[in-house]
Amino acid sequence: MSRFFSHKFDSLTPYTPGEQPRDQKYIKLNTNESPFPPSPKAQERAREEAGKLELYSDPCCTALTAKAAQVFGVAEDEIIFSNGSDEVLNFAFMAFCDEAHPAIFPDITYGFYKVFAALNGIPYTEVPLKEDFTIDVGDYVNQRKTIFIANPNAPTGLYLSLAQIEQIVASNRENIVVIDEAYIDFGGETAIPLTKKYDNLLVVGTFSKSRSMAGARLGYAVGCKALIQDLNTIKYSVNPYNVNRMTMAAGLGALEDGDYFRTNCEKIMATRQRTTEALESMGFTVLPSLTNFVFAKRDGIPGKALYTKLREKGILVRHFDTPRLTDYLRITIGSDSQMDTFIATIKTILEEIL
Amino acid sequence: MSRFFSHKFDSLTPYTPGEQPRDQKYIKLNTNESPFPPSPKAQERAREEAGKLELYSDPCCTALTAKAAQVFGVAEDEIIFSNGSDEVLNFAFMAFCDEAHPAIFPDITYGFYKVFAALNGIPYTEVPLKEDFTIDVGDYVNQRKTIFIANPNAPTGLYLSLAQIEQIVASNRENIVVIDEAYIDFGGETAIPLTKKYDNLLVVGTFSKSRSMAGARLGYAVGCKALIQDLNTIKYSVNPYNVNRMTMAAGLGALEDGDYFRTNCEKIMATRQRTTEALESMGFTVLPSLTNFVFAKRDGIPGKALYTKLREKGILVRHFDTPRLTDYLRITIGSDSQMDTFIATIKTILEEIL
Repeated sequence: MSRFFSHKFDSLTPYTPGEQPRDQKYIKLNTNESPFPPSPKAQERAREEAGKLELYSDPCCTALTAKAAQVFGVAEDEIIFSNGSDEVLNFAFMAFCDEAHPAIFPDITYGFYKVFAALNGIPYTEVPLKEDFTIDVGDYVNQRKTIFIANPNAPTGLYLSLAQIEQIVASNRENIVVIDEAYIDFGGETAIPLTKKYDNLLVVGTFSKSRSMAGARLGYAVGCKALIQDLNTIKYSVNPYNVNRMTMAAGLGALEDGDYFRTNCEKIMATRQRTTEALESMGFTVLPSLTNFVFAKRDGIPGKALYTKLREKGILVRHFDTPRLTDYLRITIGSDSQMDTFIATIKTILEEIL
Repeated sequence: MSRFFSHKFDSLTPYTPGEQPRDQKYIKLNTNESPFPPSPKAQERAREEAGKLELYSDPCCTALTAKAAQVFGVAEDEIIFSNGSDEVLNFAFMAFCDEAHPAIFPDITYGFYKVFAALNGIPYTEVPLKEDFTIDVGDYVNQRKTIFIANPNAPTGLYLSLAQIEQIVASNRENIVVIDEAYIDFGGETAIPLTKKYDNLLVVGTFSKSRSMAGARLGYAVGCKALIQDLNTIKYSVNPYNVNRMTMAAGLGALEDGDYFRTNCEKIMATRQRTTEALESMGFTVLPSLTNFVFAKRDGIPGKALYTKLREKGILVRHFDTPRLTDYLRITIGSDSQMDTFIATIKTILEEIL
């Protein structure tokens, strides 16, 4: 830290991204990336733009927004795009939280909510998940706070039904509810249609997972026109050209290729099922996941030890070194062959240890 | 505005980007874009990445930073990259300004400084430029404020010498001086070497102009290690993966192709000279520019009228509708053929009007 750094950030602890080691080739099951490349159409459109980079990108994301409106079934002025969903989540913290509107979210959830709150000097409450890691809907009913819920939640993979989401939104008409649907495409039902009915609902999504575009950085939010206007006020005060030409084009290509998207999501769900069964057959407890990862533990083997063993054998998974999560591993669902290797490796490790 | 928008932004006026009309083909001389495509090497590297977007980008920008360190003559931990230079400018406002460290910058300069200050609730002072639009160095000596100076300045195009910059930096050892060098490559001398000597100097740059990458969004800041650490604390609390894979690769390619970069800068400078002479021969006053634009006025013709006439004839330039600037037009230096058309069109308009 320099002697010039503003004291308002004295207690700020930045987010820790999953490790991206460069020392050897790993099977990467640690950052919930897709094992599939982006749609050929996305790639083609991105490549076309590479020769036109001298011109600014369209700050309104006109073509992408028009296509997204059609795919998501909303109007064009009900969508905003961002440089990854982290950016628009931060915009939502800026726009809809302050001293009078503190934030509230689960104690175990996407680690960035806490960072965004701290960054923006927003008071916040972390509500403990229940013993079984589920969200108690009652904790979020009739709050006077801005609510952030990842659905499905991370790193648990657990899902609230649309009826439960609506119960939360309907009971909080005087404050904003943000539903972060980064993992919704792996078996969940999106809350986007509820934005027609509730002017206090903002749904956030990303192209990182189900559309294989983590490295392109493309996120979005859907809500009523007035909420999107507010987020645009922030965007045009931070970075109007936040989405670059190549990513914007890739996003359009990805939306145009709905078949590719659906096929990949189905593949992941099938592989998740197979991986879950294999882990359970080896004595693991696996939370029922509607995401592209599973959260699992094996009684008698600390999560950290298993993480280290896997790493030694060339497989990266994510371990969270906090009291309630320390027994577990978060394992991204990769390709079938990656998961075959993973399962075989777990088998070997169990034989070595037990 | 929704009823949920935080009152802390009640007086926030977002930045207004230059117009990007889609109603017809214009010669675009209004947003200081390069008339040249990005380096073939930049294009090639970006295209290679389009097939690997399923993996997150490297938050440390390792390869790009290593190359930039070599090109800029600094250490790798003295550079940070961002999603356009706007992003890292905002990071600097966040990191180095607060109630105790208000901002100070010229009244006529890059319009975003005022927006960033307002966005972050930072008190700021706008110092009037002198009558001839130059910066009075004395206004910035021995300040107790965080100083932001665009050098060369926009939209004037006027330049402070490195000695003048050093005078400002050396007299402000207890506060940060940010030199925004978006246009430095068109004849100015960068202040980057001064970052070795002064721990209170941050130099900001962009690939948008001289490296033809406005649509890719790539900016950077150079300063001593501790300042870059502070900016990284902000980056890792806002958007760790702020630079996408394709842009990162394009940036590396652009830095590898120094000849292409230098040739283009020289072309722009030669065309600027020719354009300036042509305008002067038609009775224009043209400020001496060290940028890829000229700021010019013609006595007897209001800037707005000339802007409108040019637009009618298919040429877009930038007009700022504020008292001190209203007589002027900011004209981006395009290709030789674009500027031939521009000069011929101005000639026609003068004949029509006068």
